Amino acid sequence: MAMINAFDPGRAEGLGARERAMVERRQRLLGPAYRLFYERPFHAVRGEGAWLFDAEGERYLDCYNNVASLGHAHPVVVEAIARQAGLLNTHTRYLHETVLDYAEALLATFPASLGHVMFTCTGSEANDLALRIARAATGGEGIVVTSLAYHGVTSALAELSPSLGEGVPLGRHVATVAPPDAYRGGPGMPARFAADVAAAFAGLARHGIRPCALLVDTMFTSDGVFPDPPGFLAAAAAAARAAGALFIADEVQPGFGRTGTMWGFERHGVEPDIVTMGKPMGNGHPVAGLAIRPSLLERFGGRVRYFNTFGGNPVSAAAGLAVLRVLREEGLPANAAVVGAQLLAGLRGLAGRHAVIGDVRGAGLSIGVELVRDRSTREPATAETARVVNALRERRVLISASGPGANTLKIRPPLCLSREQADLFLAALDGVLAEA
Amino acid sequence: MAMINAFDPGRAEGLGARERAMVERRQRLLGPAYRLFYERPFHAVRGEGAWLFDAEGERYLDCYNNVASLGHAHPVVVEAIARQAGLLNTHTRYLHETVLDYAEALLATFPASLGHVMFTCTGSEANDLALRIARAATGGEGIVVTSLAYHGVTSALAELSPSLGEGVPLGRHVATVAPPDAYRGGPGMPARFAADVAAAFAGLARHGIRPCALLVDTMFTSDGVFPDPPGFLAAAAAAARAAGALFIADEVQPGFGRTGTMWGFERHGVEPDIVTMGKPMGNGHPVAGLAIRPSLLERFGGRVRYFNTFGGNPVSAAAGLAVLRVLREEGLPANAAVVGAQLLAGLRGLAGRHAVIGDVRGAGLSIGVELVRDRSTREPATAETARVVNALRERRVLISASGPGANTLKIRPPLCLSREQADLFLAALDGVLAEA
Repeated sequence: MAMINAFDPGRAEGLGARERAMVERRQRLLGPAYRLFYERPFHAVRGEGAWLFDAEGERYLDCYNNVASLGHAHPVVVEAIARQAGLLNTHTRYLHETVLDYAEALLATFPASLGHVMFTCTGSEANDLALRIARAATGGEGIVVTSLAYHGVTSALAELSPSLGEGVPLGRHVATVAPPDAYRGGPGMPARFAADVAAAFAGLARHGIRPCALLVDTMFTSDGVFPDPPGFLAAAAAAARAAGALFIADEVQPGFGRTGTMWGFERHGVEPDIVTMGKPMGNGHPVAGLAIRPSLLERFGGRVRYFNTFGGNPVSAAAGLAVLRVLREEGLPANAAVVGAQLLAGLRGLAGRHAVIGDVRGAGLSIGVELVRDRSTREPATAETARVVNALRERRVLISASGPGANTLKIRPPLCLSREQADLFLAALDGVLAEA
Repeated sequence: MAMINAFDPGRAEGLGARERAMVERRQRLLGPAYRLFYERPFHAVRGEGAWLFDAEGERYLDCYNNVASLGHAHPVVVEAIARQAGLLNTHTRYLHETVLDYAEALLATFPASLGHVMFTCTGSEANDLALRIARAATGGEGIVVTSLAYHGVTSALAELSPSLGEGVPLGRHVATVAPPDAYRGGPGMPARFAADVAAAFAGLARHGIRPCALLVDTMFTSDGVFPDPPGFLAAAAAAARAAGALFIADEVQPGFGRTGTMWGFERHGVEPDIVTMGKPMGNGHPVAGLAIRPSLLERFGGRVRYFNTFGGNPVSAAAGLAVLRVLREEGLPANAAVVGAQLLAGLRGLAGRHAVIGDVRGAGLSIGVELVRDRSTREPATAETARVVNALRERRVLISASGPGANTLKIRPPLCLSREQADLFLAALDGVLAEA
């Protein structure tokens, strides 16, 4: 999550007058904690499919945004939101059919063991609620995450999200493990991941901290994208359970078809105890939630009445139902698999011509391309990666970067990306790498 | 926040076949942590102004919901959401005019000292972010709240929300003070509130816990609604500041015109260090945030880059701008003041005929009516209050109850409530009390 491609306000002279005024106004109104992408910030006014349009009407190929996952401003979702907002938008302390229809449709996408769903507005709220429930269910507090994990912005999640940096210290109940990085850790690394998880819970226990949960993004997105080999997560989940902890799959980024399957954990043949979800769940509308094994809710539900003012309201449910319908009717998980495979193949082709490409990995339309200065030392090409991201932006292609060296191109286009658009992306990247 | 009027699943036989099936389905899908209002749950399908309509088309007068504060399904907000959702819904790492226009319009409603605004999706996220910032700014952790406060559902907020009950223990860094209850605490109580706040911070200091913030709902809604006399909060804020703590005004419930002024703190002539807001901010659309003195953000903004995926997206900003416009164009804060005064006068009239009414208090359309078994002992009429709330529901008038004895009727209609609707409410309550 290092933001190598963040805008530096000191460089505002590179901007046009309108954007410079917006940047100044933004800093005055929103203050110092907000960041902009790119050396030259992007001013978006309209979106359609995988295209974003700037104020001058120029189009940009969006290969970054995993929220508007069906494509920007998808008409089926917009219509569902407008229709329900025009009827009623109230809360879950009254009965409403739509939230029940949505809960049923959503649960049908999960293994039968996950029998209940609960609604929040954001992925952060979903992970925070999962923590509260997991603590009640286990009586423990110890959480194991990966060393550059990101799980959300609440107080409780910031202290287990090491990707936020040293300005946000980890909690004493939090232990980190190296991500399952087969490129740097060697081919045995994904298998060693399970042993690391077991050791981390043992380490917490030696400090008197009882196990609560292993919490991972099933694509390890902010760690640098680590999908392979499919199946390795099952052993890590088993290690967590053997220690007395739950396995919580954070599907906020991989979920809803991005990896070519509906959920990232499916690739690993494992059934999580809790699954959290968010980002693409409403294609931009703030809807999120979790699915859970019913027995885990008994203690929490017996003590706590849960209410989230906007969570599970009829408009969010209508948006969520529309997303599920479009995913199915447009065959988007399958498109992600097909176009993702095309992109991976094309990227591996580019690696044959550009020595800076050290590794290409991904599943569906969640892809990481690690750039290195030297393929034998694997020295991270951090500055070069920032240049590639910014040069692509100048060619009107939007991506970002992640990983500990901020040297992994993070490629996550809307799931509707066409084969032609994938070729456009590959050609743009080829051109940028040739210039570098 | 005690839910005296919650549905008991064991009483489902009182329901029609359709609602019984919905309750069963809901329990199966959503699990045991969700609650329904009323002995006979309400099945809402449509809303307009202060009316809600059930599945049979029967209309109910909504005197409870403080989210759809402009009136249910307000067309100006619905149109703003639909239009912007059809154009673009993306995040704050790109430039967008609408979020800046909204930030500017929102800050114009605050004292000039509150110079920055930050966006979240829910009031919980806003209070949680306020805590993170306040900790960074003060270096302390100690929080003082009222004894039945409710500030949100995240892990960090649940542990400072005593209204959630004993199933959710308070944090060790949290101290509670009695609410400024002039009815039970005597007329000196609101003034004593400041002394209690000072003592609470002193108590925390004796445990080595340094001051962070006094956090209060400026109408003390979940404590039982305590608005009077206007001005008493200024001394409490001063006491907090004298202890080295910040004063955070939680305007999630009182804000956006409900008390007859834009913000609840205005009645007290005090300028908070941070103001959090939510519920009515998007008239149902999930938008929330905080306003803050810029100097308090320096340390946080220097260490932490803040990003909330859906927070401050263009659709939320469009919804928020529409809400501000409707509040102004329809004169809703003034209407809340006028119709609220009518309701208070009418309720005091009812108190002349019904001995169960122990106290009537409120500001604008945030009103509490405390029911007692005996006006001299002030014994809480808890069961009677539950009967009144449920009997009103049978007469198609929706309210709820709050306070430590769950004996304070909580009356919070949409701000568009008309004088005729206020009379309808008073007549219904009169009838219910006459029957009791």
